[in-house]
Amino acid sequence: MPIHCVVNGVAGASLDLFDRGLHYGDGVFRTLRLEHGQPRWWREHLAKLADDAIRLGIPCPDPTMWQADLASLGGRPGDGVLKILLTRGTGPRGYRPSERAQPNRILILDPAAPASDAWPGHGLNLRVCALRLAAQPALAGIKHLNRLENVLARAEWDDPEIHEGLLLDAAGHVVSGVMSNLFVWRSGELRTPRLDQSGVAGVARTRLLRLAAAAGFSVRETEISLADVLAAEELMVCNSLIGLRRVARLGDRVWPESVVSARLAGLLDA
Amino acid sequence: MPIHCVVNGVAGASLDLFDRGLHYGDGVFRTLRLEHGQPRWWREHLAKLADDAIRLGIPCPDPTMWQADLASLGGRPGDGVLKILLTRGTGPRGYRPSERAQPNRILILDPAAPASDAWPGHGLNLRVCALRLAAQPALAGIKHLNRLENVLARAEWDDPEIHEGLLLDAAGHVVSGVMSNLFVWRSGELRTPRLDQSGVAGVARTRLLRLAAAAGFSVRETEISLADVLAAEELMVCNSLIGLRRVARLGDRVWPESVVSARLAGLLDA
Repeated sequence: MPIHCVVNGVAGASLDLFDRGLHYGDGVFRTLRLEHGQPRWWREHLAKLADDAIRLGIPCPDPTMWQADLASLGGRPGDGVLKILLTRGTGPRGYRPSERAQPNRILILDPAAPASDAWPGHGLNLRVCALRLAAQPALAGIKHLNRLENVLARAEWDDPEIHEGLLLDAAGHVVSGVMSNLFVWRSGELRTPRLDQSGVAGVARTRLLRLAAAAGFSVRETEISLADVLAAEELMVCNSLIGLRRVARLGDRVWPESVVSARLAGLLDA
Repeated sequence: MPIHCVVNGVAGASLDLFDRGLHYGDGVFRTLRLEHGQPRWWREHLAKLADDAIRLGIPCPDPTMWQADLASLGGRPGDGVLKILLTRGTGPRGYRPSERAQPNRILILDPAAPASDAWPGHGLNLRVCALRLAAQPALAGIKHLNRLENVLARAEWDDPEIHEGLLLDAAGHVVSGVMSNLFVWRSGELRTPRLDQSGVAGVARTRLLRLAAAAGFSVRETEISLADVLAAEELMVCNSLIGLRRVARLGDRVWPESVVSARLAGLLDA
């Protein structure tokens, strides 16, 4: 089955050349799993999309509109990866957002399983990226369309044995993976980097923080250094496609066996 | 005459939905004046586009390709604004740049005069933006498609009497205008902010640095504070659409008359 696209409810694989998503990266997006035709964690993804849009001043359609767009993809019953983009719409040249702009909704359904499904179950192999994330509180946490830092970081390696890269900020704090959020287990506490300066606060991360706390785990958003990561008893990454995965290796540091990741992965997927 | 667009040499106003320019802002661009059908400062714009593309690892077509694209706009003899975008092209989902991606070339010709042509000749009215630019050496100076900072800064005001906003970085250094570069005249020296952490090193700025030095001016790229700006004997902004314009007011600070701006504007336009 080919990749299927819908723009503002209409099937089609092209976009208006004046869309501000292209010109300025002026928009937000989501990437999620479709299971038996149903988007996983759908309500949470739509809520996060709306939160991100609000922070950029982009009016976000309500969930019924997205549900209709999803239906217009053809009611496909299978599995796959769904990407949703919301841009500020088209407008005249210039950075100034037009008040008359109508946001554009884009849905892209890829029925192929994500490449990460083939990653080893016993743990991932990570590297530390050279690129340092910039500190920008006005954009931190938002999954917006300005992703050149991630592109440049991902371009640093082409070794297929390396699954993910660790991103630090200019101050030396660990922020996230290139396409995932990070969790550190140590001394009976589950910690994840605070994302008030850079990074994307993903839905899987938010779910895990909530569900682990509800299950009695001590959880905390905090500053985390590379030394903290290396001292972890267990290191994990998560996103909406891979779920929660344990890290088996980061450079020379090896974590030979699971401590809490299996239980946490179960909480996340519940 | 309507706006005219060419994508990879073919007339059309739509773009492939899988273009990485949309998904990641993975591309670079130029905005310049067309005079009697000829792009102003064309060679310099193409050189800067190529430099920016190289920094992102995007193969840049050579000037003959751009010249052919320009011809395919229809050999329009008039004036207008030409915007050129070069994206990394289409590719599979994921941040990793595909080696097989073919860059996409987009030309948009707007025959309308830029709104800035109506700005007062005696000087512009500026404000200081609240948004602070992030420090990212890997992207500093490049005119790339990740422009959310500019969008958010430009959204801070809608007073038509304010022509431009001044952007500072998190460390308090003045970097540029939202859509222009900045020059400060004081004590017989022409200074402009160093752009190794943020900002766009525009063609007009580069030209003016070169031409002013050749004309015997003392010129310097350096750190500039807001206090330095307020202490300026003359303040100027420039880009490829507005040329060099003097600033008449920044908040309460007023500069009543031109000192060197008329001569420098003449050098830039020569």
